[in-house]
Amino acid sequence: MDLKAHIRDIPDFPEPGIVFRDITPLLKEPDALHFVIDSLADVFGPSQIDYVCGIESRGFIVGAPLACKLSCGFVPIRKPGKLPAAVHSCAYTLEYGTNSLEIHQDAFASGSGCRVLIVDDLLATGGTAAAANMLVEKAGGTLVGFGFIIELTFLGGRLRLPGDVPVAVLVSY
Amino acid sequence: MDLKAHIRDIPDFPEPGIVFRDITPLLKEPDALHFVIDSLADVFGPSQIDYVCGIESRGFIVGAPLACKLSCGFVPIRKPGKLPAAVHSCAYTLEYGTNSLEIHQDAFASGSGCRVLIVDDLLATGGTAAAANMLVEKAGGTLVGFGFIIELTFLGGRLRLPGDVPVAVLVSY
Repeated sequence: MDLKAHIRDIPDFPEPGIVFRDITPLLKEPDALHFVIDSLADVFGPSQIDYVCGIESRGFIVGAPLACKLSCGFVPIRKPGKLPAAVHSCAYTLEYGTNSLEIHQDAFASGSGCRVLIVDDLLATGGTAAAANMLVEKAGGTLVGFGFIIELTFLGGRLRLPGDVPVAVLVSY
Repeated sequence: MDLKAHIRDIPDFPEPGIVFRDITPLLKEPDALHFVIDSLADVFGPSQIDYVCGIESRGFIVGAPLACKLSCGFVPIRKPGKLPAAVHSCAYTLEYGTNSLEIHQDAFASGSGCRVLIVDDLLATGGTAAAANMLVEKAGGTLVGFGFIIELTFLGGRLRLPGDVPVAVLVSY
């Protein structure tokens, strides 16, 4: 499927000079949405994932259906102050600005060593994904891979991700 | 399934006097997550839904898998400034504070009259859900129902929702 045909370019969003890759046209097409989830499930199905971590907010839209498809648990990685119980935090820089992310300290079953997949809609500079990886480690998880719909290859985000796990991307710019 | 056993009470979050119903323990249990999605799909499967609208952020976690399960499109209803193209806006009051929500003006296929289900994790005062309903109407959709994991019945949110569509709730407090 030509996913790019379902992704819309919005110039100068959220800031001048940025071309925003808008996935809402993709999400509203049932076939395209299914294709995204099925494609990532095909890549990671054999990896015996225990938890899919979705990064707030668009990562939830990809991660939650993928968790259902893989019959895994879903764990939200959220912006500061949103998770109500005790959290681990990690600050990061992103394509336009800085932020931090949090994960519940008890996100994964105790005993741990569980196998975790991190999912987001977009790999840009890799700052968000690297922070998510740090949070998964802090919470006792073992990272098994990353899954994204889109990679902005010119930003080199892959270089900030650990080299020893697969990174699945469905569309590259 | 006893979903309440997977929902955790967090006192005084996000403000003193509020008991927050935390669904993260539910989300990380594959059986419980499947049960939620399957239960809502059972209710609305016969309704020929075209689009599931999820309300940012936790509504994405419920809405996106439900859209996949029902083979519908998924449409995000987001906080201000997040959607990159032209939007409709609606201000609302919520359990603790005020906010506004936005939907893309072209969220639904043109010609419209499409059948829309609004989904969120929680029905509290109903302000968020009523705003979402207004946005669906502005964008040309026809509301077919609401789906929530949790209803806080003592807040009377149902009274703010239109009386002529079904409201599915899996857990009541």
